[in-house]
Parts: sequence; structure tokens; C-alpha cells
Amino acid sequence: MADRSENIAPAFLSNLRVVLVEPKVPGNIGATARAMRTMGLSRLVLVKPVDFRTVPETRWMAHGAEDLIDNAAVVSSVDEALADIALVVGTTNRTRGIWLNPIYNIDRAAALIAGVVQKQTVAVLFGREDRGLLNHELQRCNLIVRIPVAMKYPSLNLSQAVMVIVYEIFQACLDPPKPVRLRLAKNQDIERISYRIHDTMRRVGFTPHPNEETFLRAIRRVFRRSLQLEHRDVATLHKLCDEIDAYVERRGG
Amino acid sequence: MADRSENIAPAFLSNLRVVLVEPKVPGNIGATARAMRTMGLSRLVLVKPVDFRTVPETRWMAHGAEDLIDNAAVVSSVDEALADIALVVGTTNRTRGIWLNPIYNIDRAAALIAGVVQKQTVAVLFGREDRGLLNHELQRCNLIVRIPVAMKYPSLNLSQAVMVIVYEIFQACLDPPKPVRLRLAKNQDIERISYRIHDTMRRVGFTPHPNEETFLRAIRRVFRRSLQLEHRDVATLHKLCDEIDAYVERRGG
Repeated sequence: MADRSENIAPAFLSNLRVVLVEPKVPGNIGATARAMRTMGLSRLVLVKPVDFRTVPETRWMAHGAEDLIDNAAVVSSVDEALADIALVVGTTNRTRGIWLNPIYNIDRAAALIAGVVQKQTVAVLFGREDRGLLNHELQRCNLIVRIPVAMKYPSLNLSQAVMVIVYEIFQACLDPPKPVRLRLAKNQDIERISYRIHDTMRRVGFTPHPNEETFLRAIRRVFRRSLQLEHRDVATLHKLCDEIDAYVERRGG
Repeated sequence: MADRSENIAPAFLSNLRVVLVEPKVPGNIGATARAMRTMGLSRLVLVKPVDFRTVPETRWMAHGAEDLIDNAAVVSSVDEALADIALVVGTTNRTRGIWLNPIYNIDRAAALIAGVVQKQTVAVLFGREDRGLLNHELQRCNLIVRIPVAMKYPSLNLSQAVMVIVYEIFQACLDPPKPVRLRLAKNQDIERISYRIHDTMRRVGFTPHPNEETFLRAIRRVFRRSLQLEHRDVATLHKLCDEIDAYVERRGG
């Protein structure tokens, strides 16, 4: 069996989670576990996965990383998977971003991830085998990465994509840059302030166009596309809302 | 279907072959084809493979790269696969070389491979799922590479290893170094001069210790561990043998 003492992975890699969103092929879950283990990762999160525990293929493909499967967290939503995550990294095979968000090649982005993961939690999200991550899921990401490929079709399969991404992150972590010391706001803080702003704006009589969901998405995007949003920035935004709310209160609504 | 015009792979990647030695799992052959296609490679060589053509799993895993499977060259020996190859790259999960041959991490070695493949043929050899490449196969390689991993067990599976290696080579080829202009001796030239020296030494009455096979292996190794052996170097060696043979001839054996 594996001799734990042989593991040359930096301890801070326990800050990194791999999140598979609605994986449909049990073998891909197993192969993901194996890829993670070889690259020193252990925390696997599955959002609404196929039934994988009773399928022998899962364990065959995990081959030596069965404990990652046994210990995988199964959650019912992306939000639940990201609640306490500081940096959310989305993966895509697109070359252009939704709403012009930049998409970084993983070989460039790996050093940044290595900088953050030394001190803070990072989640890397992988989408469904057939459709990838949906737009509203990509909007939840602070950083969107892709694997440079020769052509768009065929795409890498899910476990191949996981392999390359975790390989690049592991290599970057072997010789990591200085830790990024920003107190990045966590995902739940961003969600909270987005709703807060939405709520406050309603109080001052703002009617979003074309609808509230679009407005909320626009607010989220403002905050999520910045990698540098810190706790104190979120606090500043809450302070603005406090002031506006107080004004509305004084004026009697 | 794939639009060929979308392919951003440099044309010289047709100089690179992926060689699987005795693959036993049809799905790995299919997944290898898919990994190759995404990284702009098209030439797959299989040495004594499992029966893969009649197994549906091969094509499922190839998913869009079925033509690589259809066009794969099936050969009966490693020698046959390497006959016209200038640079033979072996893969291993060992961290130390047989007989102290250096083993390079693929992220370092990829630039060198990119340098050579612009002008000359390169083969990357992958071993069996259970045993990898055998010692005598690794001895046939000019360059031995590994994938840096967190721990030795579990290893990457065959198609995961192919994925990472071809990914690294492709990335290096997107921004390639100056072509290596050496006229590297081909594999068959090395084989020929090794036997030639062996033969000439017998003529001068040399008795190898402990046996001829060991001596032949030692000669091969001298030549193979050098990446810089050019045609003219091999010509020099043949000239030496010519001279010795002529001397033996004059002296009447």
C-alpha cells in the first residue's frame, strides 16, 4: 500500500478542492480520484452526481485512490460546494468568455492558484461531460481557465481535463510563488452583499431592467470578475448599503 | 464534425509519433487517440496491442478521434516502430534511471522535444499498463522522461500519462525554441554501428565479459545516452571499424 511518507505534495494542497458538477459517468469520478491522488490532492466534492458508489467501474478507475471516493462530499448545489471557498476557479473549453470575462490558459493561471492556495481555500469546478459548466455557474467563478488545445473538436473528456488541470496546479505548487496574502472575500460573502445591494436598491425605488434576476447577475459579475475583492471591500459595500437603508428609514420609506 | 481549418497545431507535429507498447486495455487505446487529437497529433503506433478493432470501447473512448484508430500502425516489435526515428523518448514512473541514465521531468524535456520535432522524427514510447517499459526498451531511448507526481502509488493510468505528456509537448510546440539542427543518427544507425563494433571486436579476439549480450548492451548504451550523436559521429565509428577490420584482414585473421 501507499507509504504516506513518500508524499512530496505540500501540505497546503489540502486547501484545494476539486468539484465535479453533475458527473454522469461513474468511471470519470474514479479516474478523477486517481488523477487527484497522483497530484497530491484529496478533497473531492460531487454536486448531484450519478449513483457512483454501487458501480464497480468507479473503484476500478480509482485504482489506489478509493479512499477519495469513500470520503467524497456529495452536495446538492454548487452554492453548497462553494460556501467557504475564497477563490472559485471555473473550467471551460470556450476560448471567449461570457460577457467578455477573460479566460486564462491553465499554464498561466496555475501560478496564481498556487499563490492563493497556500493560505486560502480554492475550488476548481468541472462541468458535465456533455455540457460543461452552465453560464450561471461560470458567473460564480473568480477565475475561468481553459486548457490550450489544437482544435475545438473533439474536446478532452472530463477525467482528461481534470488530469491536466491538477497536473498544472501541482507543478506550480512544487515551486510556489509568494503566498497571495489578500483576505479574499469568500463566495458566501459575495452572495450576501449581492443580495444586500439588490435589496437596498429596491428600497430606494429602483426597478431593475429587464428583470431582477438580470440585475442580480450583473451585480454578482461586478464582484466576481475581480480576483482582488477582500473582506474589507465587502465591508465597504455593506457600509454603503447601511447608509442608504438608514436614509430610507429616516424618510419613512 | 471537426473543421480542419480550426486546427492550430503546427504542421511539424506530424513528425511526432506516439507508440504504445503492448497495450492491454482497448479503452486506453481509444483514450490515447482522443488525447492525441486534442493536442494536434495524429500518428499512433501500436506494438503487439490487444485486439482493439472489434471492441466497441475503443471507439467510445476515442470519441471524435476514430480516424486515428483506423489509421494506427500495428507493428510486431519496438524495433519496427523505431526504425526511422531520430529521437526516441521513453516514459517511466521511476525516479532513478537504470544504470544511472538521467530521467528528465517532462516539463523540462518538452522544449528539447519541441526543438527536435520541428525538423526530425520523434517517437514517444509508453509501456504496458502493468509493467511499463522493460529495461531493454528503455535502453533503446535517447531520452527518458517522467511526470512529476506527489507519490509513487497509485501511478497514473496509461491514458492519463499519455494525456499529460502530449499536453506538455503540444504547449512547448506552440512557442517552440529554435529548431535543433543536428543530424541526429537514427535508431537503425545506432543498432547497426553497435553490432558492427561488436563484430569487429570479435575479429580482434576480444571476449566480452560476462557475455556478448552484456557487451552489446553496454555499447548501445554509450551511444543512446547521448542526445547529440550525429550521422557524422556514426560515420567516424564505422571508419574506425573499417580500419581495424582491414588490419585483421592484412594479418590474415
